[in-house]
Amino acid sequence: MRLTLVGSIALDSVKTPYGEVTDALGGSSLYASLAASYFCRPCVVGVIGEDYDSANLDILEKKGIDTSGIVVLPGKTFRWKGVYNDLNRAETLDTQLNVFADFNPVLSAEYASNEYLFLGNIHPSLQLNVLSQLECCKITAMDTMNFWISSAKEELLEVIRRIDIVFVNEDEAKMLTGCHNIYDAAEEILSMGPKLVLLKRGEYGAMAIMTDMMFYAPVYPVKKVVDPTGAGDSFAGGFMGFLAGKGEFTKSAIKEAVIYGTVMASLDVESFSADALLDIETSEIENRRKKIIEIISI
Amino acid sequence: MRLTLVGSIALDSVKTPYGEVTDALGGSSLYASLAASYFCRPCVVGVIGEDYDSANLDILEKKGIDTSGIVVLPGKTFRWKGVYNDLNRAETLDTQLNVFADFNPVLSAEYASNEYLFLGNIHPSLQLNVLSQLECCKITAMDTMNFWISSAKEELLEVIRRIDIVFVNEDEAKMLTGCHNIYDAAEEILSMGPKLVLLKRGEYGAMAIMTDMMFYAPVYPVKKVVDPTGAGDSFAGGFMGFLAGKGEFTKSAIKEAVIYGTVMASLDVESFSADALLDIETSEIENRRKKIIEIISI
Repeated sequence: MRLTLVGSIALDSVKTPYGEVTDALGGSSLYASLAASYFCRPCVVGVIGEDYDSANLDILEKKGIDTSGIVVLPGKTFRWKGVYNDLNRAETLDTQLNVFADFNPVLSAEYASNEYLFLGNIHPSLQLNVLSQLECCKITAMDTMNFWISSAKEELLEVIRRIDIVFVNEDEAKMLTGCHNIYDAAEEILSMGPKLVLLKRGEYGAMAIMTDMMFYAPVYPVKKVVDPTGAGDSFAGGFMGFLAGKGEFTKSAIKEAVIYGTVMASLDVESFSADALLDIETSEIENRRKKIIEIISI
Repeated sequence: MRLTLVGSIALDSVKTPYGEVTDALGGSSLYASLAASYFCRPCVVGVIGEDYDSANLDILEKKGIDTSGIVVLPGKTFRWKGVYNDLNRAETLDTQLNVFADFNPVLSAEYASNEYLFLGNIHPSLQLNVLSQLECCKITAMDTMNFWISSAKEELLEVIRRIDIVFVNEDEAKMLTGCHNIYDAAEEILSMGPKLVLLKRGEYGAMAIMTDMMFYAPVYPVKKVVDPTGAGDSFAGGFMGFLAGKGEFTKSAIKEAVIYGTVMASLDVESFSADALLDIETSEIENRRKKIIEIISI
């Protein structure tokens, strides 16, 4: 089945202890669609400026990603500049929204009919706008961030009420619910409507939590984290891509999807930008999947 | 098989967001022996002052713990006072070593012949002293802390070279090895001699790492952490107790032991001091064991 991804497309300048890159491939829907491309044919909705190198779109198309939903607007592409001093937390040095400030996602009839949807971290009112355009959608998912929890909480809660899957990290889950205990926070989110909470715990792995299921996947043991940018989006993209490719929303598929999402995030962080996601051998994905399963096998 | 535990016996005064206790049961060998008592007959080596209530020793004996290795010295019992403001990290308000300053662990012939040994967090030179007294020991294990890593590193490295199992948390593993990556740190410790590293990751669970095995157990999802004191010792005690009870050091037994250790730690943190470890139904241990296995089952 097909997956629509809505989110940012950016040019990132990132510095980590292992080096730096300037105006490299970035943005939530870019990372997510590349990770998803190994499991299904993702359709991307996004906006770029006139300065965006069309060769980048060719790269995506070659990965089997449908880029017809990417709109070019007059002006410059969204740019983000950040530094990781300890590889666990990015410090933002500069954000230039540019054309992304006018992002108004419109789904084509075809995109609106795709069975799976992932809403990247954008303003909740845009997320609501997209949800209202859906013709038929089996499973919808969303990501968000602390900024929207504090600045647009009402709209965000409305999105959560209408969505199937919520991706959150621990701080966001606690901030969103006011719960100190992470399991209480997850339960509280589920009580708002979603069927599934994907709790992202960084280097400690991820949990899938439903009212009657809890599943923990540790990270793949990466020896050298070069650039963590996009890890969360790669996780979400791998997860949603696998679900869409499999075409079912069963507990078994969800657990498999968590592991594939974890694999894609582990690959992403080993190189700068999205470099590592551009050319992955299927055998490497399978090897990492097996290793993670081995780590949790009794 | 029998397990000898060497470590502190203390009276703890602890304050957490859920209340406080004064002069309550504490100390690494007390927590570890109580947790171990559900799986084997632990033998405790420790020191107490004349002020220690003998009723406390009766409590341990009733749990099947051999307290004949606990020596009474003139003076007061070791006291620790701490406060948890966020339940993740204790702030020490006061430490009175008292008789613990003169702790000189001597093993009886019987204790020296026990097949399993756990060295709690005491000065590495005392740990070495105990190792030199062993008559026959199948499996030896040690815990330590950042203070010894910085103040007695040479002796500590000598203990590590001579031990089978090392219990460490992430900060300690990195500090001990100088590695930034936690998997590198674990490998480095293994290269010093031990067969197994037990990496304690607090609310994120624990990992057992050998040269040819990696196993991750998430925590049991505790809804209300009342007092985290002793969680690490309860984990170690449950782990070592299960291994000694089982009498084998196979990969399968190690994985089971990690889960039982995790269960005992989850029980410990739900009440102040060691209260929760005093009266646990076997069925509750089994229920939690099953729940943890369910959380990592594909």
